[in-house]
Amino acid sequence: MKQMEEKILREGQVLPGDILKVGSFLNQNIDTEFLGQMAQEFSRLFADSGVTKVLTIEASGIAIAAAVGMEMGVPVLFAKKHRTSNVDGNTYSAKVHSFTHNEDYNVVVSSSYLTKDDHVLLVDDFLANGQALHGLMDLCDQAGAEVVGVAIAIEKCFTGAGDKLREQGLHIESLAMIESMTDSEIVFRS
Amino acid sequence: MKQMEEKILREGQVLPGDILKVGSFLNQNIDTEFLGQMAQEFSRLFADSGVTKVLTIEASGIAIAAAVGMEMGVPVLFAKKHRTSNVDGNTYSAKVHSFTHNEDYNVVVSSSYLTKDDHVLLVDDFLANGQALHGLMDLCDQAGAEVVGVAIAIEKCFTGAGDKLREQGLHIESLAMIESMTDSEIVFRS
Repeated sequence: MKQMEEKILREGQVLPGDILKVGSFLNQNIDTEFLGQMAQEFSRLFADSGVTKVLTIEASGIAIAAAVGMEMGVPVLFAKKHRTSNVDGNTYSAKVHSFTHNEDYNVVVSSSYLTKDDHVLLVDDFLANGQALHGLMDLCDQAGAEVVGVAIAIEKCFTGAGDKLREQGLHIESLAMIESMTDSEIVFRS
Repeated sequence: MKQMEEKILREGQVLPGDILKVGSFLNQNIDTEFLGQMAQEFSRLFADSGVTKVLTIEASGIAIAAAVGMEMGVPVLFAKKHRTSNVDGNTYSAKVHSFTHNEDYNVVVSSSYLTKDDHVLLVDDFLANGQALHGLMDLCDQAGAEVVGVAIAIEKCFTGAGDKLREQGLHIESLAMIESMTDSEIVFRS
């Protein structure tokens, strides 16, 4: 998506540790006109996927997921992050490692809201090492739900995680795919 | 808003400790068609307020805020929750007490995203004791931004916090106003 690449080039900031700051438009101060355009693009890309539910993870995926869900006319479910694992039979829970904060956390959804009849579109702002995505896929596995696609705003291709998941047959669409980035240059996959 | 009251009566669950569970449609598994209707209603209610920015708090306010921001055509900013206070000159930070978890946390926004030119609509899923709201108002004060309204999905009127803020001149609109609730009956303000 050309507009996403332009936004990143204009407003993004590359920080040490392969961090790309896009808080000015994507995940803290949200440009809602652009958010609507993103949702339309994802809706177009997954129009034939039979999506019945959007699943994301709190907190920065929620706005994108809400916009996509409204555009596609399906419910949006978000997994909560917990420091502790509280599995009580009414929830599915999966462990996720955060490289950014160097700690493990659990993602949790109620088993009432994710079922074997769901065809799930996973949504997140970033795909880097894929840890969060694996957590969400794990929750879907536990529920017997089918993951029919993955919608990502910005993929850091240089980690290889996205391509590995594509090789396994997952349908991933990223609106911007970054091959490399430094504080002076960001190179997108063409 | 009639539909909100109907949704609460149909799907809400009152739990001990004055907790109203509405995860099935509002803040975990989100009914996006209904979310769009809520956004339209808030947009109508604050049409003359000169809103330039929507401000909410992670995580359960984000979907509502995103929908309202898209409907009103203004950016959405969300304050992050931190366990520690990391004020570094580039952020505004305010302490909030959570009665639910009986702990303090800090709400933080970047000073780049909230300025003295902003006319802010605060958005949240619940208004109970008003602690989170006071935190957001504090952030706006620090930025010199003007709070022009407060959009709440469900207000627990029996705490008195909402009415107290109204007496101070704040324009608060709540889509459902609960006067009392038990596990057998929920009474709305008429």
